[in-house]
Amino acid sequence: MESHISGGGMDEKELRVANQRRVGSSESLVRILVVLLTLVAALVQWLDNQTKVVPTTPPTLPATYVSVTAKWYYLSAFVYLVVANVVACVYAAFSLVLSFANRGTKKSSLEQLIIILDLLMVALLFSAIGAAGAIGLMAYVGNSHVQWNKVCNVFGKFCHQVVASVVLTVLAAVAFLYLVVLAVFGLNKRSN
Amino acid sequence: MESHISGGGMDEKELRVANQRRVGSSESLVRILVVLLTLVAALVQWLDNQTKVVPTTPPTLPATYVSVTAKWYYLSAFVYLVVANVVACVYAAFSLVLSFANRGTKKSSLEQLIIILDLLMVALLFSAIGAAGAIGLMAYVGNSHVQWNKVCNVFGKFCHQVVASVVLTVLAAVAFLYLVVLAVFGLNKRSN
Repeated sequence: MESHISGGGMDEKELRVANQRRVGSSESLVRILVVLLTLVAALVQWLDNQTKVVPTTPPTLPATYVSVTAKWYYLSAFVYLVVANVVACVYAAFSLVLSFANRGTKKSSLEQLIIILDLLMVALLFSAIGAAGAIGLMAYVGNSHVQWNKVCNVFGKFCHQVVASVVLTVLAAVAFLYLVVLAVFGLNKRSN
Repeated sequence: MESHISGGGMDEKELRVANQRRVGSSESLVRILVVLLTLVAALVQWLDNQTKVVPTTPPTLPATYVSVTAKWYYLSAFVYLVVANVVACVYAAFSLVLSFANRGTKKSSLEQLIIILDLLMVALLFSAIGAAGAIGLMAYVGNSHVQWNKVCNVFGKFCHQVVASVVLTVLAAVAFLYLVVLAVFGLNKRSN
């Protein structure tokens, strides 16, 4: 009877270790994905500029044209998007190393620190998405009440790159959300 | 010797129950605070409008003036801020009832659901903070590159109310962050 219980305990332990390994590799894969997503999102926004030749305002006779360049750092919301992605990318790479180092040892304080930092990345990236999304939408549709004219009708490529960077940042933020959920489920499973 | 071990077990159990109760009341207090913060943040933004008499643009001779009103729903970022706060307020009230109902029973699936929804509120509120913050900043400083003029020099009271609402939303979002951290620490304590 005793050996039966002991054997059951071993099976359960093995199952738990196998489960932890599975969660661990899933976590590592998500962190690698986040490094790539935030790196590409930062690069896409950082390389975003477009030059167009447009008629002068107010229009003159004879018509004269000027060359106008849109650059990513002209709008602080896009600077914030790049900075947030760089911070998240560096942290994701760092946390990947930390979670590898923690795998064998199970240091719960380090595990907690990683969850809290993941959580802060969720906050950081979603605020950057909100900021860049709001300014991007304003550039796309404009607003007659405050007399802010749309600019995406002129700088189409520039705006498309903003959309691409925001979409990549959304994916990275959702991946961080998933990492926190994974950690919460893992801890809950252990506590039961 | 056996009675000593049993007594020690009881003490530990009592300590755990007392700790859970302490965490539970702290959680309830934070949820009540969140209901109040998001309610006031939504109301402050929802009641935000200001009418000013300003000279016409372009200026005419003799000078003519028009009455211009700034309303919160003219800018979609502020509509998003109100909607996000209302959603967070309703959820916080609902989760308060749920966490009360869950206190005696310890249903881990319900506990997990609450943590995940708290996490989604963090994402929702921080994206709204980013959006309203970026548009608010643009209204405050303007941007010469895209020719979006600042409007806070005219509608000062309107902008102050936006700042108040954003600050209250930041506090509510940080409170949700704290709730997730509290839950993670609680689960981790139980798992050790």
